[in-house]
Amino acid sequence: MLSRRMSLVVVGSIAFDAVKTPFGERDRMLGGSAVHFSLAASFFSDVRVVGSVGDDFGEQEYAVLRDRGVNTDDIEHVPGGKTFFWAGEYEWNLNIRHTLDTQLNVFGDFAPKLSEASKQADTLFLANIQPELQREVRAQCPGARLAALDSMNLWIETARDSLLRTIATVDMVLMNDDEVRMLTEQPTLVRGARELMELGPRMVVVKQGEYGASLFTEESFFSLPAYPLETVLDPTGAGDAFAGGLLGYIDAQGGADDETTLRRATTYGSAVASFWVEEFGCERAERLTREEIEERFEAFRRMTSVEGVPTA
Amino acid sequence: MLSRRMSLVVVGSIAFDAVKTPFGERDRMLGGSAVHFSLAASFFSDVRVVGSVGDDFGEQEYAVLRDRGVNTDDIEHVPGGKTFFWAGEYEWNLNIRHTLDTQLNVFGDFAPKLSEASKQADTLFLANIQPELQREVRAQCPGARLAALDSMNLWIETARDSLLRTIATVDMVLMNDDEVRMLTEQPTLVRGARELMELGPRMVVVKQGEYGASLFTEESFFSLPAYPLETVLDPTGAGDAFAGGLLGYIDAQGGADDETTLRRATTYGSAVASFWVEEFGCERAERLTREEIEERFEAFRRMTSVEGVPTA
Repeated sequence: MLSRRMSLVVVGSIAFDAVKTPFGERDRMLGGSAVHFSLAASFFSDVRVVGSVGDDFGEQEYAVLRDRGVNTDDIEHVPGGKTFFWAGEYEWNLNIRHTLDTQLNVFGDFAPKLSEASKQADTLFLANIQPELQREVRAQCPGARLAALDSMNLWIETARDSLLRTIATVDMVLMNDDEVRMLTEQPTLVRGARELMELGPRMVVVKQGEYGASLFTEESFFSLPAYPLETVLDPTGAGDAFAGGLLGYIDAQGGADDETTLRRATTYGSAVASFWVEEFGCERAERLTREEIEERFEAFRRMTSVEGVPTA
Repeated sequence: MLSRRMSLVVVGSIAFDAVKTPFGERDRMLGGSAVHFSLAASFFSDVRVVGSVGDDFGEQEYAVLRDRGVNTDDIEHVPGGKTFFWAGEYEWNLNIRHTLDTQLNVFGDFAPKLSEASKQADTLFLANIQPELQREVRAQCPGARLAALDSMNLWIETARDSLLRTIATVDMVLMNDDEVRMLTEQPTLVRGARELMELGPRMVVVKQGEYGASLFTEESFFSLPAYPLETVLDPTGAGDAFAGGLLGYIDAQGGADDETTLRRATTYGSAVASFWVEEFGCERAERLTREEIEERFEAFRRMTSVEGVPTA
C-alpha cells in the first residue's frame, strides 16, 4: 500500500459565531465550516485548512487548531481585515434556527490559495462556499483520490447551474435532506440521490440532523440514526464535524472503495457529531479523545442491530 | 408454551377518507386507525377489531377486513348513522398535511363494546381515541400480556391529564416524535421517553415518519430508518400499519420479553409501513404477502448493518 501518510485538505469558512440556544449562549466562539471539519477530521488523519482570517484571529484561535495537529499554513491572514462573523438563534426545537447577523468581512473576498502541499491532497473537502470557488479548488487538486462537497440553499437559489457543474467534478456530495430535495426537485431522497449521482458523483451522503444520516451509492443504501442524547446544547457545526469524521476516516483508510469502509466512515462521522452537539460550537473537541469516539462507534453498532449485539 | 393461538384486539376508528397528495387522489377510500392496524397485524396474528360504522359501511368494506382474516364481530353497526369521514391534503413535502374536513358521525358517540372474546385479548392496541375511552377498554382486558396506546395532539391539548392517567395503565406508548415532545415538554426524545416510562410503561416506540422509528426501554435503545422508497404516494395510515406489524409480530411471539423480539417487531412494523405508503390508503394491503414482508425485513437488516451484511 502507500507508504506515506495520507492527507486531507478542507477549504471553507473560518468564523466567529455568536449563538443563542434555549440552553445557553456564547457571544463569540470559534466557528466556521473549515474549523469544525478540520478539528473533527484531526482525530483520524492529517488535515490542512485553507481559509482566510482578519486581525482579530489570534494565537488563541490558531492554538485550538494546532493543538489538534491541524496544519494552518494555508490560512491567509488579511491585514486590516476582520474575520467572518455569524450570529444565530435556535428555537426550542433545535432544528429551527434564525440568522440574526452575517458579516462576511474577509470571507467576502475569499480566493482560496493552495500551497503546493495542499495541492497534493489525497482527500479534498470543499465545504460550503461559492460553487465557482469550489470548482477552482477542485481543479488545483487533480490527484485527489476522493473529492467531496457540501453546499447550502443560498447557492441552490442563486448559483444553481454553477453548483451542478461543480457537483459533476466531485466523487461525493454531502448535503442535508432539504437541500437535496430543493436542488433536485425530487420528492424522495432515493430519486434525489440518484439524480445527483447521474451528474458524476458515485456517493451521496444525506445529513438529516437529529434523525441521522443516509448513504447512497449506485449499488447500495445505508442509513444510521443519530446518537440518542440526553442533552443537546448547540447543533452549530455538527454537520461539518460529521463530514470531518467521515472523510477523516476515509482518508486514513486510503480511500473508500468498499461498502464497509463507507459505512464505518458514516458511523465515525455520526459518532464525532454526537459529541459536538453536547456543548457549544467546537468546545467539546478540545477534550475529546479517540477512545471516546471508539466507544460511541461501538454504541452505534449495538443500537442499530436488528438482532441485537451483546455488549463487548 | 401456550397451546391456543394468541389474539390481538384493536380499538379505534373506522373511516372513509378523502385524500389528495401531489401524486394522486381518492374521493372515498376505506381508512381509520383500527382498519390500517388490523390489516397490517393480520399478516402475523389473529386480529379482532372493535369500532363503529354507519349504514354506508357495506359488504365491500367488511370483505376487505375478512379477506385478510380479521374478525369483525365487534364492529358495531349504528342504524341510520354514517361512518366517520375525514378529508385531507398533503403538500409536496408529504410530512405536511392539512385537514380539509372532519365528520365524526357515529364515531362521535363511540362507546367501545367488547365481546367476551375480545376481553380475552393477549395483546391490546388502543388506537388514537379519547383517553378516557382507552382507559375503559384497558380495564376490560385485565389479562392482556401487553397493552399499547397511540394518541394525538388533540388529546394532549384538551385531555392531557386523562391521557397521562391512561398511559400509566399500558406497557407501551407508541406516538410520533412531535407528540412525545409536546406531551412531555422535554427537548430530547431520550428525556421524553424516560419521562413516559416513569409513568408506568416499560417501552416507548417513537414514530418518526419518513425518518423511521426509535424504540426506548429502560435498558436499551434501538433505532431504525425508514425503508428508502423510490415512490411514496400517500402516507395515510402508515403509522397505524407500523403499529399493526409491530404488535402483530409481538402477539404471534407470545409477548415481548426480550430485546431481540422487540427489535424484530419494530423492523417488521417498518417493513409493513413501507408497503403502505407506496399506494393510497390500505390499497397495497390487499395484494401484500408475508413473503414480501420477509424480503423487506431482510433488506432492513442489510441496510442498517454498520459492517455490511452480505445478501442472503
